[in-house]
Amino acid sequence: MTLFTLNFGQECTSDSPWTYECRNEVCFKIDASTSKNEQMQLSTCKLTCGPHAALFPKPSVETILSKSTLPFLPSMMKNPSLSCTQKPCDIASLNWYVANAFNILRKDMEDVYQKLKKPDGEMRCQSSALGRRISTNLIIASDDTTLTLETDESYRLNVSTDSHADIEVQITAKTFFGARHAFETLSQLTEYDEINNSMQVLTSALILDKPAYPYRGVLLDTSRNYFSIESIIRLVNALSYTKMNTLHWHITDTHSFPIQIKSVPNMQKYGAYSHKKVYTHKDVRTIVEHGKLRGVRILAEFDQPAHCGEGWQWGPKTGLGDLAVCVNKQPWQKYCVEPPCGQLNPANQNIYPVLNKIYTEYFKLFNPDVFHAGGDEVHLGCWNTTEEIRVYVQKTYGDLSEKSFMKLWKDFLDKSSAEIVKANNNKDLPLIVWTSMMTSQKYLTDYLDKDKHIIQLWTTSKSEDMANVVRKGFRTIFSTYDTLYLDCGYGNWLTEGNNWCAPYKDWKLLYDNSPRQFLNKNFNITIDDKVKKSILGQEAAMWSEQVDDQAGDSKIWPRAAALGERLWTDPDHNWEQASTRMIHHRERMVDRGIPADALQPLWCDQNEKNCYYDPSINGHYADFSSRR
Amino acid sequence: MTLFTLNFGQECTSDSPWTYECRNEVCFKIDASTSKNEQMQLSTCKLTCGPHAALFPKPSVETILSKSTLPFLPSMMKNPSLSCTQKPCDIASLNWYVANAFNILRKDMEDVYQKLKKPDGEMRCQSSALGRRISTNLIIASDDTTLTLETDESYRLNVSTDSHADIEVQITAKTFFGARHAFETLSQLTEYDEINNSMQVLTSALILDKPAYPYRGVLLDTSRNYFSIESIIRLVNALSYTKMNTLHWHITDTHSFPIQIKSVPNMQKYGAYSHKKVYTHKDVRTIVEHGKLRGVRILAEFDQPAHCGEGWQWGPKTGLGDLAVCVNKQPWQKYCVEPPCGQLNPANQNIYPVLNKIYTEYFKLFNPDVFHAGGDEVHLGCWNTTEEIRVYVQKTYGDLSEKSFMKLWKDFLDKSSAEIVKANNNKDLPLIVWTSMMTSQKYLTDYLDKDKHIIQLWTTSKSEDMANVVRKGFRTIFSTYDTLYLDCGYGNWLTEGNNWCAPYKDWKLLYDNSPRQFLNKNFNITIDDKVKKSILGQEAAMWSEQVDDQAGDSKIWPRAAALGERLWTDPDHNWEQASTRMIHHRERMVDRGIPADALQPLWCDQNEKNCYYDPSINGHYADFSSRR
Repeated sequence: MTLFTLNFGQECTSDSPWTYECRNEVCFKIDASTSKNEQMQLSTCKLTCGPHAALFPKPSVETILSKSTLPFLPSMMKNPSLSCTQKPCDIASLNWYVANAFNILRKDMEDVYQKLKKPDGEMRCQSSALGRRISTNLIIASDDTTLTLETDESYRLNVSTDSHADIEVQITAKTFFGARHAFETLSQLTEYDEINNSMQVLTSALILDKPAYPYRGVLLDTSRNYFSIESIIRLVNALSYTKMNTLHWHITDTHSFPIQIKSVPNMQKYGAYSHKKVYTHKDVRTIVEHGKLRGVRILAEFDQPAHCGEGWQWGPKTGLGDLAVCVNKQPWQKYCVEPPCGQLNPANQNIYPVLNKIYTEYFKLFNPDVFHAGGDEVHLGCWNTTEEIRVYVQKTYGDLSEKSFMKLWKDFLDKSSAEIVKANNNKDLPLIVWTSMMTSQKYLTDYLDKDKHIIQLWTTSKSEDMANVVRKGFRTIFSTYDTLYLDCGYGNWLTEGNNWCAPYKDWKLLYDNSPRQFLNKNFNITIDDKVKKSILGQEAAMWSEQVDDQAGDSKIWPRAAALGERLWTDPDHNWEQASTRMIHHRERMVDRGIPADALQPLWCDQNEKNCYYDPSINGHYADFSSRR
Repeated sequence: MTLFTLNFGQECTSDSPWTYECRNEVCFKIDASTSKNEQMQLSTCKLTCGPHAALFPKPSVETILSKSTLPFLPSMMKNPSLSCTQKPCDIASLNWYVANAFNILRKDMEDVYQKLKKPDGEMRCQSSALGRRISTNLIIASDDTTLTLETDESYRLNVSTDSHADIEVQITAKTFFGARHAFETLSQLTEYDEINNSMQVLTSALILDKPAYPYRGVLLDTSRNYFSIESIIRLVNALSYTKMNTLHWHITDTHSFPIQIKSVPNMQKYGAYSHKKVYTHKDVRTIVEHGKLRGVRILAEFDQPAHCGEGWQWGPKTGLGDLAVCVNKQPWQKYCVEPPCGQLNPANQNIYPVLNKIYTEYFKLFNPDVFHAGGDEVHLGCWNTTEEIRVYVQKTYGDLSEKSFMKLWKDFLDKSSAEIVKANNNKDLPLIVWTSMMTSQKYLTDYLDKDKHIIQLWTTSKSEDMANVVRKGFRTIFSTYDTLYLDCGYGNWLTEGNNWCAPYKDWKLLYDNSPRQFLNKNFNITIDDKVKKSILGQEAAMWSEQVDDQAGDSKIWPRAAALGERLWTDPDHNWEQASTRMIHHRERMVDRGIPADALQPLWCDQNEKNCYYDPSINGHYADFSSRR
């Protein structure tokens, strides 16, 4: 240990008076002058301490990690060699994905290194890193590079050190997506080390791993507020760091229509917040392609028939009314759940050719394996106060009862679904719909088909309607608002007090949110293989009434990563066992350029297991008056 | 209006189908094809609509604004000419500040212009802006450039257009600080205009303005988590945009000691999170100097005798114990209010020479008009469980009663205060201390002196202790945690649930938080001139257990700006009348590079007065079940 000076002659040591020692899976900070061991940095300790060290999410099958590290430089990593076991195999295409994903891996490591490394004068400390070679060999079974709900994302990762102290990485996976997850895991077996002024990697590791759920997502709403392309790319990157595989893109809503529809230019002209706040086809392709290399499906939602307003104000107007009705109709409380109101007009058949054009461009851009058709918060009162629609419903269904308006809605669902299939070259595909009146026990099985519709549940985690959807055998994605809505707990944007789904959902709530557990516990549903298979996964939702790209990253991360481990590993334990790795994962995200929020003082990261609350101790915490 | 195409031949018009019209002080969005008027952009409408247009905070004395604008380019603004009425006047020194502050003003405008302007191909639309000259004349009474609690920050700003359609700006102020506020106001009389592809400024304006309170602050805690220099500079900038004048820098705490003390290098060596997370003297000077040009006092706090831990672990150890005791003592709940524990040891007289060195460097760096001496959350139980201190207290005060430990604390206060005065070249200056046991009714007047101590109140706004401090004639700064703590409402960082001061404090709560009002209403205190004068102002607090520079900006802004208007204008009305300007002020902050959080959908900015909640309307908002 040297004194705190920055001169070029100093030894290759840390400036810190502290060292770390791993005892009982905890990194202890101690005064280096009192230790007999060589000085160890926190990052090195974290890399070698505990059965899962710095891995997040925790691998689900098997993890064997060495306790020693070797220094290396990311730039010294050789391009990978690939073989494919499927015969025949389009290895050129597969290799394109693998090579690009590997470049991304190398760049993630290089970014961390560039951010943390010491100035040039201390480069000589890297001598032991400079000669180290890392070679990577992959065996991938299939050349299929389409991500679906059936894709096998498992992988086997083996790291070993040869007699020349070079590193060999062996990856086996069924698909490209499994191999990409192995890359992510490999990156988490490395850390920057200040003493060598280089990255370091574990000398050996064996990891067998696969996800518990096939759908692991985050929703981003770009209609209430706009998010830049750069911020969406960052979101894709961050998802991949936790092996999450879906960015559910809630592109449009009543507030704005920010996507280019080349065949209906009026949508963006009337609907975008400004001509700069539009996702062009080129932008979308950039995001979709980047997503694939990161193992992330870009799942586009076209929300309908409610949540349509801005963008729909142009003709062709007919005797049957506008394309969308109730658009910014006031007082809004009578016609929708938040301003501005707006719903498509199913009495005006001109909406279907427009929808077909939108769907057709969506399918070309996103090439989806499932399509999100929205369907939430249909307000029958909006339709029932629109004269043209009342006339149509009276004429078509005989009266103006709830049942007749539900028939109108079903008619819209059938016709719009037919246009979706048309846009998909007449091939069926699963449709995701939000929970709504239609998914309530009263209507569910008469209106929706469990072989065709996937239900995204945004009820509370205690809702009978939710349990009914599971019991009726529908495939489900859970986004229960009392546990997974990231927009909750901020100020009410319409009046005083905090917003409708307050309080704030802390990362621990997301971590512990296991539908397998709460369905069994709260509703006595047996989680057999059939039910297990029907629960596709979960999704944390960043609705954007009160966020845009200025603060989106820090509201989503690291909270969504807690959900990520729940979905990948589905551990038997709760958040407490994940806490140390979670805090460290947040630091890693920041080092990689994601402005994730801080969960604790950095002191807690540097003094593991010292930040806790023990209710059995008679103390002052949470006793506000004593904080004086 | 042209179609949505980006070709170089297009006319100098907007691509938008919408235009705005100001009716009854509200900017209405209407279809441009249905309007007889020339197309108007939202920014132009906001600049000319309503008695206070886009100004935030609202001027407090008089505001007369024209309804017409002229295009200009920031780069065409001439350097200001200055005269000084005081005789003699050090005009060279004064001019240095004025010229630099003017450059900052010009750069703020230029940054907005560069961010929003269209590409080079459309420069020809600027012809009418290119020739426009803006000249600025200032008359400042005094050459004093020290910001104190007595500084006159008032100003008079007059904007007029001469016969050549050039703009003349006339600023009169008592001090540089008033003139700087005038610059800020001037910048808020300008907006980018897409049609001319240039900035535009009001053709005439007359504003008389002065603050309601002399102390208008935000606290930043850099001990629990570190904030980069860049993020602190951004905070200073953002404060100045709302004419707030104090950055209360809570530099150190038990968690880390991130500032360089050249004469006691062990403080940072043992106390900083890393050698990169240290504020050097050079860094501090950069911040302090930038603060002055922005009209912002950098008020350093040295929190003591509690809140001392990391950094104090080195000798000289004596028979009287360590310099700081209970440092990370566990279980922490017995010795402090949050981990890690730590308090200075008043039984060890070696602490005073160390404190003197710290104070001396603080005074050199910050040149303070008031000094913040901390003093919160002293935990008598920590001292009372430290053997060396028990021996000392027993010997010195005769027993181990609360009273004796209070005497120990008083002894520390007296001795440390004497060292502070010594460090200030033996000149007295006011000391700010936090509310604590010492400021409770039981001890206040026996222990503290109203002519010497300013009390920063962090009780709730309903606390009897708070009212007592005011009644006893102390000068006060309000930071009531139930209304002004910006860290509240996130997850509990020690266990499940949300944090101790949850829920989240929305901007409306900060806006409406008027001590003059609640002291009168809740405690029947007459707000006469004496009481008025004793209330120096308020401060929003960004404690950093759960935030660092990744999300600090968006947690502070725009919420603290709401407090800014309360403190500058102290309007008779509540948040509702400020809402439109507040939302627009947030957009302005973002355009100037402050990642402030979004308060509403951008739709609400573009459709003024359409986002509201009327409880008298029988609707669905806040009826969660209906959101299905």
